[in-house]
Amino acid sequence: MAEGEFAFIAHRMRPLAVAPGALGLGDDAALLDPRPGMQLVLAKDAMVAGVHFLQDDPAGQIAQKLLRVNLSDLAAMGASPIGYLLALARAPETDDDWLAAFADGLATDNAEFGISVLGGDTVSTPGPLTLSLTAIGDVPKGEALLRSGAKPGDDIWVSGTLGDAALGLAVLQGRLDVTERPRADLIERYRVPQPRLALGQALRGLAHAAIDVSDGLLADLGHITETSEVGAEIHADRLPLSEAGAELASARDAALSGGDDYELLFTAAPSGRSAIEGLSPKLDLALTRIGTIQSGSDIRVLDAQGEPIEPTSRGWQHF
Amino acid sequence: MAEGEFAFIAHRMRPLAVAPGALGLGDDAALLDPRPGMQLVLAKDAMVAGVHFLQDDPAGQIAQKLLRVNLSDLAAMGASPIGYLLALARAPETDDDWLAAFADGLATDNAEFGISVLGGDTVSTPGPLTLSLTAIGDVPKGEALLRSGAKPGDDIWVSGTLGDAALGLAVLQGRLDVTERPRADLIERYRVPQPRLALGQALRGLAHAAIDVSDGLLADLGHITETSEVGAEIHADRLPLSEAGAELASARDAALSGGDDYELLFTAAPSGRSAIEGLSPKLDLALTRIGTIQSGSDIRVLDAQGEPIEPTSRGWQHF
Repeated sequence: MAEGEFAFIAHRMRPLAVAPGALGLGDDAALLDPRPGMQLVLAKDAMVAGVHFLQDDPAGQIAQKLLRVNLSDLAAMGASPIGYLLALARAPETDDDWLAAFADGLATDNAEFGISVLGGDTVSTPGPLTLSLTAIGDVPKGEALLRSGAKPGDDIWVSGTLGDAALGLAVLQGRLDVTERPRADLIERYRVPQPRLALGQALRGLAHAAIDVSDGLLADLGHITETSEVGAEIHADRLPLSEAGAELASARDAALSGGDDYELLFTAAPSGRSAIEGLSPKLDLALTRIGTIQSGSDIRVLDAQGEPIEPTSRGWQHF
Repeated sequence: MAEGEFAFIAHRMRPLAVAPGALGLGDDAALLDPRPGMQLVLAKDAMVAGVHFLQDDPAGQIAQKLLRVNLSDLAAMGASPIGYLLALARAPETDDDWLAAFADGLATDNAEFGISVLGGDTVSTPGPLTLSLTAIGDVPKGEALLRSGAKPGDDIWVSGTLGDAALGLAVLQGRLDVTERPRADLIERYRVPQPRLALGQALRGLAHAAIDVSDGLLADLGHITETSEVGAEIHADRLPLSEAGAELASARDAALSGGDDYELLFTAAPSGRSAIEGLSPKLDLALTRIGTIQSGSDIRVLDAQGEPIEPTSRGWQHF
């Protein structure tokens, strides 16, 4: 017997609604007390089964990915997460075991990130399972990192390694054959991204512009250059690859154009280099300088000899 | 040619994002400056084509309903609306004309309620068009209306008229045959609800408990009595019916159990009667006393002779 809406909320979601303002999920809306001197930061992403995740991805990891892609948006703004509202449109095949595992995934990450469910809605759909989540965080007033602040002469930096999530998806879809150990690492990168919250917060006052790499490095760098009205030059040979990725011929293309890595891409004045380099051991996170913001509007990709190359793809649209 | 995600956002949604913190929808998240002394109020509802609205409902009215059911949640908390984030999962049949009409509906209501799009996400789905919206408002700290404050002896009040939306749905589904004029009125009630924002704000400090009637009067009164740990007695013959509804034999059942009216149901001490009655002409909105909060936990429905009756249905679940 399928649990009804009220039972799912009462037994699965209410235990996750630890914030007092969530009102035990028993009211029309949630209340939130803003901290003095802070701005609220609000992000909302939607995911559809078969489009944004695979039908047979584990339910707990789908929950984590939904939450983490939104936390990654908060990270890109330099914000600290507070909580979230969830909309879940349950498909006919979404059974109670799936819902229990989904709620367990949320519970894991609520503990990991110190956040609470605040509210939401559960409905039924005949179509694919569809999820959306609104994440709420805060940032000291006026200190949010934006896409619009990049300046010619800025260094371009990226955290972690690039391309792994796209390779992981290729593995899951049978388009790429790799040995067992990198296989698990790549799949993990695709399924459970790491929102770079500590990095985003540390970059306040240091980065001129920031974005998370969700559409692909070139596409997301394009969002920065368009919004900041600048151009950019990046060195393909400097893109940070994982050990797993470095063994694969397609890794460089994946690093340039693959989506879903959820690393932070940011620009900063050259005078900030040593401060940024100092963050890397503190956060146990690679931070790599991959290029320079230029005047103009073009994004040029250079090879190891400094010659321009034309990437095979410039990222993808979700729509 | 279908517009892509970026074109839809740039041409249809960006003009609606008038709040400075929306950042022209050009960033990872939106910023919001809380007003001093205020708490934020957050509501999130999802709607699926064919489940929560009819496939051939006009797109602009679907947008208005999505927005208004969320604003109704804010109204039930006594909040003032600020803005919203929208997730739109576009189905194969969702064409550019539909999207344009949908955005026009949002524009109409942004002007009506003085609010702004703050952010959101657009994705594609093979399944039915699926929407979710997170509405944000604020309320003076500590003054939000909750479901939990009802006390034995409180009057039970309801705004406007009940049952019209359920009758409108029955008309649209061909289950109910009515003449032309009430037909249009009932359909309008189903498609474009009126969030009772001014009433909710006026009830701060006056109502002990409040909820909006979305699941049906009995179901929603049950949410108040459960959360407040009280019982209730209501008089079926006192339920306010519209002119259109009063002509129909099924109106009384629709008023007790039909969903989607989005009137406010609230309780208040008898000492507040004259203040509440004074709101009615000010807001041009009927406010009707329909019963009394009791100790215990039962909800009893009485007929005109004061005899208990058993309603045919006690409301419905969305799940």
